[in-house]
Amino acid sequence: MTSCGSRVALIGVGNMGSAIADRLVASGLELTLWNRSASRIAPYARRGIHTATAVVQAIGAADVVVVCLLDDEATRDCLLNDAVGAVLSEKLLVQLSSVTAAQSQALARWVNSHDCGYVDGQIQDYPDTLRDARASIVCSGSNEAYRRAEPVLSATGSRLIHVGEQPGNAATLVNAQLSFCILAYVGALQGLALCQRAKVSPTTFVETLLLDYVRKGAFVEDLEKMMRDANGEQHPDSPGAALEVWQSAFQLVIGECQSARLEVSHLDAIDVLFGRAIGGGYGKADIAALIKSLTT
Amino acid sequence: MTSCGSRVALIGVGNMGSAIADRLVASGLELTLWNRSASRIAPYARRGIHTATAVVQAIGAADVVVVCLLDDEATRDCLLNDAVGAVLSEKLLVQLSSVTAAQSQALARWVNSHDCGYVDGQIQDYPDTLRDARASIVCSGSNEAYRRAEPVLSATGSRLIHVGEQPGNAATLVNAQLSFCILAYVGALQGLALCQRAKVSPTTFVETLLLDYVRKGAFVEDLEKMMRDANGEQHPDSPGAALEVWQSAFQLVIGECQSARLEVSHLDAIDVLFGRAIGGGYGKADIAALIKSLTT
Repeated sequence: MTSCGSRVALIGVGNMGSAIADRLVASGLELTLWNRSASRIAPYARRGIHTATAVVQAIGAADVVVVCLLDDEATRDCLLNDAVGAVLSEKLLVQLSSVTAAQSQALARWVNSHDCGYVDGQIQDYPDTLRDARASIVCSGSNEAYRRAEPVLSATGSRLIHVGEQPGNAATLVNAQLSFCILAYVGALQGLALCQRAKVSPTTFVETLLLDYVRKGAFVEDLEKMMRDANGEQHPDSPGAALEVWQSAFQLVIGECQSARLEVSHLDAIDVLFGRAIGGGYGKADIAALIKSLTT
Repeated sequence: MTSCGSRVALIGVGNMGSAIADRLVASGLELTLWNRSASRIAPYARRGIHTATAVVQAIGAADVVVVCLLDDEATRDCLLNDAVGAVLSEKLLVQLSSVTAAQSQALARWVNSHDCGYVDGQIQDYPDTLRDARASIVCSGSNEAYRRAEPVLSATGSRLIHVGEQPGNAATLVNAQLSFCILAYVGALQGLALCQRAKVSPTTFVETLLLDYVRKGAFVEDLEKMMRDANGEQHPDSPGAALEVWQSAFQLVIGECQSARLEVSHLDAIDVLFGRAIGGGYGKADIAALIKSLTT
């Protein structure tokens, strides 16, 4: 019995793959699982779910092949061989493994050369968030390929965001998002470390200052202003502080961290970026001008 | 005429100081302005606002001295001399200049040694935000000193947050907040630079992914989890990803940036922090364990 007319192979049942497997099983799709290490799929086999002992067997039994492996290297190890290429014709491959845009595009070319459709679906959340049907999957690929992938990806309970026909765009966007998150988290941890050293309550920092600031006002306005700058739009009415004022503030942060005996090498590297943009004549410009130091 | 029984001197009428001056003038407080360069206060003098030609004169005429200079160096240049010390007795000094916690504490000691109260009030926002009465001022200092400062700071229309009696705590918290903001902004700009290079819409990145993610879900949960970790609380039910999974994701971001020919030196410096925490045995721990690399 299938709920959307597709037979689905799931290649990879690791931390994220098992969350996807659980959602697809619950959706009633006709599913075949394959994993390099058989121990991860044995519990599914005992519940009567189809499992395959070879990746070609799993793919051969499917219309839509969902790949959720560790990375691009694991994907190429498992898929990029003549035996798999020979059974891909007229199927659709959905790459959910974390990859770069270039890796996604290279896979798309190989997949397309075997007469198979391709969708890049990058999961923006944790496995547990996906299990709770609260995850987002950012997708790119031709409209036709996305239309075929949509019922299967929807069966995971995720929010789907189709961001364009160019394979790799989903990877670009999710890696851009990760770039923001990880730097923000390092900044937050640095702030928490400052509080610990000064015996200031971490709760006061996060609840009273940081989250309050994140949820409203200048933080969101600054991010929107950066977006408009990147779009080449004018916004003559924007307030805010000049890049050289931001650098003064940042150097105060570095001084605070040094006084507290915290690691500052990564902050020094960012201070170099401020110096380069200001040296390039952007001192009176908005903080968005810091992008000049990143792109040159 | 005074609205709260205090005569106020404002020392420094620069970008932020003039926003404060405008709010205090509007509140009807008895105000005396001083600025190193007289051109900044001449327009106020023409409107009948008291201005002083010497900093001692301004302080001598006041009960509450609000200082809003460029930094600690400017503060020490203007205030730390015997003439000022001689007129401070029984007054209250409110330091609004951007400083580090150690600088604030050193100023507090000097001010207190002249029988004068001290409050550290760090402004969390831009001058225009303060002008619009939407700014927050994070304050620290003894309860008695804060009680005396409150009517004057309230007259600026700002939201006041008193974070403890220890002078310097306000500076610690605002610099902790800046650490978060600046790293988050660099991360966002890096993401926008990736989008530009890949010809992906900056609006899709900021509106559809980034701001949506910031406003809800895993981002806020992660920050709250880091706070609980810094508080030494247990949270056995927390989902999320292990630090080594975050490093894999971050190395993908670095690869994406390298493919797009973006600057990655600051990212490499952060990758060293991941490596150090994982090398220290925290690979299976939460991302909050990255604080170990910052504090050692």
